[in-house]
Amino acid sequence: MRIALLGGTGDIGEGLALRWAYHTDHEVIVGSRDPEKARAKADEYETELSSRGRDVKVNGFTNEMAADRASVVVLAVPPYHVSDTIDAVSDSLEDGDILVTPATGIKRDDDGFHYHPPSAGSVTALVADAAPDGIPVVGAFHNLAAGRLADLDAELGIDTLLVADDPDAKETVRLLADGIDGLRPLDGGGLANAGEIEALTPLLINVATNNEGLNDLGVRFQ
Amino acid sequence: MRIALLGGTGDIGEGLALRWAYHTDHEVIVGSRDPEKARAKADEYETELSSRGRDVKVNGFTNEMAADRASVVVLAVPPYHVSDTIDAVSDSLEDGDILVTPATGIKRDDDGFHYHPPSAGSVTALVADAAPDGIPVVGAFHNLAAGRLADLDAELGIDTLLVADDPDAKETVRLLADGIDGLRPLDGGGLANAGEIEALTPLLINVATNNEGLNDLGVRFQ
Repeated sequence: MRIALLGGTGDIGEGLALRWAYHTDHEVIVGSRDPEKARAKADEYETELSSRGRDVKVNGFTNEMAADRASVVVLAVPPYHVSDTIDAVSDSLEDGDILVTPATGIKRDDDGFHYHPPSAGSVTALVADAAPDGIPVVGAFHNLAAGRLADLDAELGIDTLLVADDPDAKETVRLLADGIDGLRPLDGGGLANAGEIEALTPLLINVATNNEGLNDLGVRFQ
Repeated sequence: MRIALLGGTGDIGEGLALRWAYHTDHEVIVGSRDPEKARAKADEYETELSSRGRDVKVNGFTNEMAADRASVVVLAVPPYHVSDTIDAVSDSLEDGDILVTPATGIKRDDDGFHYHPPSAGSVTALVADAAPDGIPVVGAFHNLAAGRLADLDAELGIDTLLVADDPDAKETVRLLADGIDGLRPLDGGGLANAGEIEALTPLLINVATNNEGLNDLGVRFQ
């Protein structure tokens, strides 16, 4: 399967790109608004993978070209770039493609990190509203610490929750998530359940901040 | 230490009462609006504990009398009874007492369970607003499945998050939580961080609902 990581030069994009390229045979494509930056990061990922004995090709393109080449398109961009990014790639999406959104709205104040959803109710809902007709949206990979994900020496042993209204799209993304060693995909229900999942991300940061020895936290439901 | 569980005849109250009486030497007092009901439940807990070789006294009183006798007072009541219950017991609270709130606002709709905080921002904030001056509030035990907590055969292996603005009160409750086998207390920061913790409870129910084999879920930060 071909997976495009739009904003794949950023932190969560890097982690997903490396993990999929390392643990699976899916083809990973790095997207960025700046194609030079995408190619440079793709080269960097190739070098990192090669140093671990994994010689695979990782390509870098503009977001539009990356989306055009892939059937699963991950919006690994900050929440305030989600709508613009979808607009930019909407002509590159076709029947059968899937949009995946891992973004969540977080604001920091004096007390800590808090969930700050857009007026749509959640970033996932914002993506669903902006997605072209007929392109299913799956919320996933919200609660992963980017640094830990991008460190291939770090064991995961954590869960990721999937929300979608299209069961086939959800199952496709579930299989992609399941391909990453140590990541257990769980079903979170429909898109309307995304808010509580997104709110877990600032909570993970607060818990890491307030407890010595806990860093780059994930979560396990048990 | 004497712990009063107001609404200690209900599900989360039952679990905390049994666990503290079973795993620790703290004195557990069951409170209820109806003293007969409190005494009947306290007797039931004694019988359950005795059947496991633990012969301890559990007393049952009105909420007011239970609060009067204890230094840690747990509001194990539904969120819509929190304010009334605090009003009822406020004359029974004195310097050095601590109010503990495990309640969270949840509403169910067609999609699943969702966080439905009161206008104060969280149930924890509502409790802090209603608490008498000088009585510190600690949010804790929000994300525990009541049935699993009340089943002394069930192993926990899960975390509970504490929020408070008073470090001494938080430390007292941390030690109480730590006394329960298999429960790891973690620091969630100040009271203002309670919303994301309370929102985790409906998420746990959604995950249990949507994944076969996962029931009575708790959470582990790792």
